[in-house]
Amino acid sequence: MNEIIYALDLFGVAVLAISGSLAARGKGIDLFGVIVLAFVTAVGGGTFRDLVLGNTPVFWVKDTVYIFIVLALSSMTVVFANHIQRKRQWLLYMDALGLATFNLIGIQVAQGTGASPTICIMMGVMTGTVGGMIRDVLTNDIPLILREDLYAITAISGGLGYFLLSHWFSHEVVIPATMAITFLFRVIAIRWHLSLPTFALKN
Amino acid sequence: MNEIIYALDLFGVAVLAISGSLAARGKGIDLFGVIVLAFVTAVGGGTFRDLVLGNTPVFWVKDTVYIFIVLALSSMTVVFANHIQRKRQWLLYMDALGLATFNLIGIQVAQGTGASPTICIMMGVMTGTVGGMIRDVLTNDIPLILREDLYAITAISGGLGYFLLSHWFSHEVVIPATMAITFLFRVIAIRWHLSLPTFALKN
Amino acid sequence: MNEIIYALDLFGVAVLAISGSLAARGKGIDLFGVIVLAFVTAVGGGTFRDLVLGNTPVFWVKDTVYIFIVLALSSMTVVFANHIQRKRQWLLYMDALGLATFNLIGIQVAQGTGASPTICIMMGVMTGTVGGMIRDVLTNDIPLILREDLYAITAISGGLGYFLLSHWFSHEVVIPATMAITFLFRVIAIRWHLSLPTFALKN
Repeated sequence: MNEIIYALDLFGVAVLAISGSLAARGKGIDLFGVIVLAFVTAVGGGTFRDLVLGNTPVFWVKDTVYIFIVLALSSMTVVFANHIQRKRQWLLYMDALGLATFNLIGIQVAQGTGASPTICIMMGVMTGTVGGMIRDVLTNDIPLILREDLYAITAISGGLGYFLLSHWFSHEVVIPATMAITFLFRVIAIRWHLSLPTFALKN
Repeated sequence: MNEIIYALDLFGVAVLAISGSLAARGKGIDLFGVIVLAFVTAVGGGTFRDLVLGNTPVFWVKDTVYIFIVLALSSMTVVFANHIQRKRQWLLYMDALGLATFNLIGIQVAQGTGASPTICIMMGVMTGTVGGMIRDVLTNDIPLILREDLYAITAISGGLGYFLLSHWFSHEVVIPATMAITFLFRVIAIRWHLSLPTFALKN
Repeated sequence: MNEIIYALDLFGVAVLAISGSLAARGKGIDLFGVIVLAFVTAVGGGTFRDLVLGNTPVFWVKDTVYIFIVLALSSMTVVFANHIQRKRQWLLYMDALGLATFNLIGIQVAQGTGASPTICIMMGVMTGTVGGMIRDVLTNDIPLILREDLYAITAISGGLGYFLLSHWFSHEVVIPATMAITFLFRVIAIRWHLSLPTFALKN
């Protein structure tokens, strides 16, 4: 089980490195800047999680394979950008799988430090979303996650599912079920363009 | 005494959660984004303080009541936004009380880790101001605190008062006096629109 | 040797405090805001390094002389801004020396925590560059480092030099050589306006 989660984690980092690299396009950002954006997008959430939990050195300092994956994928994205962008739809589904994995890992890392379920669910959400927030701040946008797409609600649903199911089932059931919930909610939100209402000014 | 400070701290988090939520209005930010903005505004300063002091896990991981206060107050703000905004003047005074509390708590947390008075005063300032800075960065503004309103000078005055008074008086006197100094300076700055000169280009 | 590095570190902080203060000009930022910008520019990189390595409290909490240098230099910059700006060319070379020092210190601090060479080189780069990134985000620009100037490549070259040379030479040789490599690469990039290609949209 742990090997599968680790493999999915590396996969999630790879997907987010691609989406972080693509965000750099057409903004006057140079090749090194692309790597920086790929890096913060892919590992920003997990870094923040490890910092607030006091789980330091952070994960990519302990295991540098994450860094090399980001280097490889962001270089590849620069070379094959046009090809990748045509497969945008695929990227969204891979991103949903990445989110599901990051959410699960965030929950499990927090649980490993003895944190309460509330914190575990938050850490799941943050692992999956904070990287994208930093990416958007660096490229001078209001973060997408604050504006649309049910990204976070999706992650919270997965987190609630994890703790509910844990009352009756073993890890062998709970882990794939949590990932399936998060993945499916995300795919549904993408397909039907679901979003929360925004907080408008009344005038 | 400690119970009063804790109650004031929760009150300060509530006030900052309201002001963070209001900052989201009319910017295309959805309901989840409102909660995120309320959260970073209310706990961002204390989180930064705990991180640089190595005081981890950070305070809201240890005591999740802060999270629930943010959830409750930001939901309430979305529902009663128009009503709250009419009471804007009240909000400024509550905010001044929140700043006074955060300043005191920042000083005391730093002192508890054995930090020097310089660091304690800085941690007081940061606890009260960093959250608002992150809120402004996320909504794509140059942070208000960099531009006006004597927010930080106010906090520094309270911090200097704390260490000066500690030479002659006991905690029972120093704590309310520190809070009174910070609160009054802030109210004076608000009433008379005091601000520092800006660093202009000579042309 | 250690005394020289410490002196160069203080010098680097002073130079970055000046450049951080100058970045505040003409943006409606008040005198306190100038100090904040000087502070994040000068110590932001080292703070981030210490946080991800778990090396807390961070360096300026342990040794407050850094804070007083920032206070002194940012005040001086506000007073002598026009005089300093006329010496802009000098500032670039002092900045290159600051970068070389920060890079070396980042590598050595990381090595002191037992980190791998990959992480050490990254920490060198981050110590020299993250402060400028935060400064640009706070003043609402896309960070310069993402866009031009071979800042990071320069730091990486120094880092690679450090570990390569360490195979054959002692610290007395490696340290000045690393600094010389970083300094010279940076000066060359400045003189010939070298930069990486940007990641453009094909249309």
